[in-house]
Amino acid sequence: MGLVVQKYGGSSVADAEGVKRVAQRIVATRKDGHDVVVVVSAMGDSTDELIDLAQQVSPLPPGRELDMLLTAGERISMALLAMAIANLGFEARSFTGSQAGVITDSVHGKARIIDVTPGRIRTALEAGAVAIVAGFQGVSQDTKDITTLGRGGSDTTAVALAASLGAQVCEVYTDVDGVFTADPRIVRSARRIPQISYEEMLEMAASGAKVLHLRCVEYARRYGMAIHVRSSFSTLPGTYVTDLDEEEAADMEQPIIAGVAHDRSEAKITVVGVPDKVGEAATIFQALADAQINLDMIVQNVSSATTRRTDISFTLPTEAGGRALAALDRVQAAVGYRSLQYDDQIGKVSLVGAGMRTHPGVSARFFTALADAGVNVELISTSEIRISVVVRGSDVDDAVAAVHSAFGLDSADVEAVVYGGSGR
Amino acid sequence: MGLVVQKYGGSSVADAEGVKRVAQRIVATRKDGHDVVVVVSAMGDSTDELIDLAQQVSPLPPGRELDMLLTAGERISMALLAMAIANLGFEARSFTGSQAGVITDSVHGKARIIDVTPGRIRTALEAGAVAIVAGFQGVSQDTKDITTLGRGGSDTTAVALAASLGAQVCEVYTDVDGVFTADPRIVRSARRIPQISYEEMLEMAASGAKVLHLRCVEYARRYGMAIHVRSSFSTLPGTYVTDLDEEEAADMEQPIIAGVAHDRSEAKITVVGVPDKVGEAATIFQALADAQINLDMIVQNVSSATTRRTDISFTLPTEAGGRALAALDRVQAAVGYRSLQYDDQIGKVSLVGAGMRTHPGVSARFFTALADAGVNVELISTSEIRISVVVRGSDVDDAVAAVHSAFGLDSADVEAVVYGGSGR
Repeated sequence: MGLVVQKYGGSSVADAEGVKRVAQRIVATRKDGHDVVVVVSAMGDSTDELIDLAQQVSPLPPGRELDMLLTAGERISMALLAMAIANLGFEARSFTGSQAGVITDSVHGKARIIDVTPGRIRTALEAGAVAIVAGFQGVSQDTKDITTLGRGGSDTTAVALAASLGAQVCEVYTDVDGVFTADPRIVRSARRIPQISYEEMLEMAASGAKVLHLRCVEYARRYGMAIHVRSSFSTLPGTYVTDLDEEEAADMEQPIIAGVAHDRSEAKITVVGVPDKVGEAATIFQALADAQINLDMIVQNVSSATTRRTDISFTLPTEAGGRALAALDRVQAAVGYRSLQYDDQIGKVSLVGAGMRTHPGVSARFFTALADAGVNVELISTSEIRISVVVRGSDVDDAVAAVHSAFGLDSADVEAVVYGGSGR
Repeated sequence: MGLVVQKYGGSSVADAEGVKRVAQRIVATRKDGHDVVVVVSAMGDSTDELIDLAQQVSPLPPGRELDMLLTAGERISMALLAMAIANLGFEARSFTGSQAGVITDSVHGKARIIDVTPGRIRTALEAGAVAIVAGFQGVSQDTKDITTLGRGGSDTTAVALAASLGAQVCEVYTDVDGVFTADPRIVRSARRIPQISYEEMLEMAASGAKVLHLRCVEYARRYGMAIHVRSSFSTLPGTYVTDLDEEEAADMEQPIIAGVAHDRSEAKITVVGVPDKVGEAATIFQALADAQINLDMIVQNVSSATTRRTDISFTLPTEAGGRALAALDRVQAAVGYRSLQYDDQIGKVSLVGAGMRTHPGVSARFFTALADAGVNVELISTSEIRISVVVRGSDVDDAVAAVHSAFGLDSADVEAVVYGGSGR
């Protein structure tokens, strides 16, 4: 009977029929006695259409104006949704990000939420209305200009509002039934994960699982806000992303492995023959940072004893490849490296699970599975609860399937799998 | 070198090309050394498309939400326009009605401006930027909800901002060259009116001339704000709507007649056989007022000496016809009238000119022209500077042409026409 925040993405409200279907779902929650705050994205492809229009007018539109333009998208969907709810006999009031009190910094296009002051939302709820809030947008604290939050922005809006209003749960509606042990398009036997910790979900999101954006999970973890990822096309439970301490996890017989994620959106650059001197790596990474490039995996081998040179490899978003190569070219003389190798035909496969911490043998089983499937590993990187490898892009499907199967994720009973070997 | 407010309608910014063309025009004004504030409408038919979407979702959308929806239209056009100006190397900042300080009452769909507090616009101008403001919209003083101003709203926004900022002139750009002595589609020899008084323009607008909305002219008159109506497709001067006192008018040899307007959007209702008793007319008009129907012309004849009954006729917007008949039905017993006649095949033709006040014989010439053209007059109504008649809809073109010609408006030299006869 508490407050529920629900977030619906653009594909759920792609047309009038979708809007009406979502309205019915919201009204059903209201009828169950809950207060409801809804965060909604722009309809279907409408944001892309607005970007198209902008490009017809200007090749490099100012960020302030691009944000002003794009925020028209949620304005349309939220007003329509409020109308559809009113048509079902329930009061609904729509609010822009600014009206809802989503206060951000001034970085147009990827603003960060710095405060949420949802006074008008509270007033609407007290009056018995459903509050509909535009996702993805806010208002800057300094200049009072309209901002957008960038990718994953609507999910983040929903979690931020839920946390600030003390909601019981933040329901994120999507077109799949929750978070899966692997992409069901690749592994047909992939299973829905009923419950996953913030840490695991963070690693899954960072490793390419697209259901929830990294940023929204980070926000949820920081404020301890439970997220329920579920389908807008069914009433089945989805995946609960919550805070599980180790004791709870043991009590609940949490599986050791959460799932297998993959990512084809990255490219790999190898800087060949970097002299083994203090500060060379720093020069390279500073040049990339100056070019505003976010790196993912970074690997450096021990340098050769004879040449006293080493190779540094890293992965980065494919769309940043050209800029990265240009930035590295500019420091070739300073660094004295021999050459650059660029490869965008790669994929990343990651195994994620909090149980890795305490269960030895996970690494051995992982690499054995890849070897048995004939998959060559090009780079390796690990965190406390994740192992990631870079493989050929054409090997990604086989690698995901092999690892998924090797860890018993195909079956219904993950806990039954016993790991042999020692260490990772 | 002062401040110029420019207003561009939806047809001027119907697509990316239109937006770029308007941007060039604005930049040209800026290069001339003027500060520029631009008020812009939604692109082309986009408002109609949004209304369509609303109707797909709800047959009777709440006014608050419809306003939230429709204001997305100007948000898109103003952001695109700011981008196009930036692309030409000039700074531009777009502002919603709310950001621009357009404060209204809370009547959604036809809010009235009650204050303008353009602090952010002033700041933008002081920083050397062009300020782009969304037309047609504001924010309610009480509830801080987004409102729309209804028909003619963008013109009114422009005049209100111009008045509040102390602009030199408010330029209203349209797809014709200004205000004409008659609709050029009907009278090919119609001429552009170089200058017209607020009063005449009000009568022209009220009589069906569509270039400027009544409301915006009223606002301009109240604040003494000069309007320059001109084409966005040429740099020719258009029509100046200004305050002309009688002396000025004489000095400038203002023409006696400003022009001929017509209107096909009205229907006529005759309440037949109304008993000649005190209060019967009041009951009828109260019933219509309660049904929110705006009447235009109202005519009552002297009652017949034998029957002691009279007929009351009035005109009203055709779309309100059904509601009016229903409202009158409900008071038939109370009023005791005999029957109702409804006719939507009518047209109104009006002659407007401040010179009527002082030049006798205008009425005689007007009715003679109609008679010579074989046009039957059904209702007559006059103001100090206007004569209007209701005729058959099929006679409107002939009537406009005949009157236009009879008052010498076809020629280039209106002043040469001498009126005979006496009185009106």
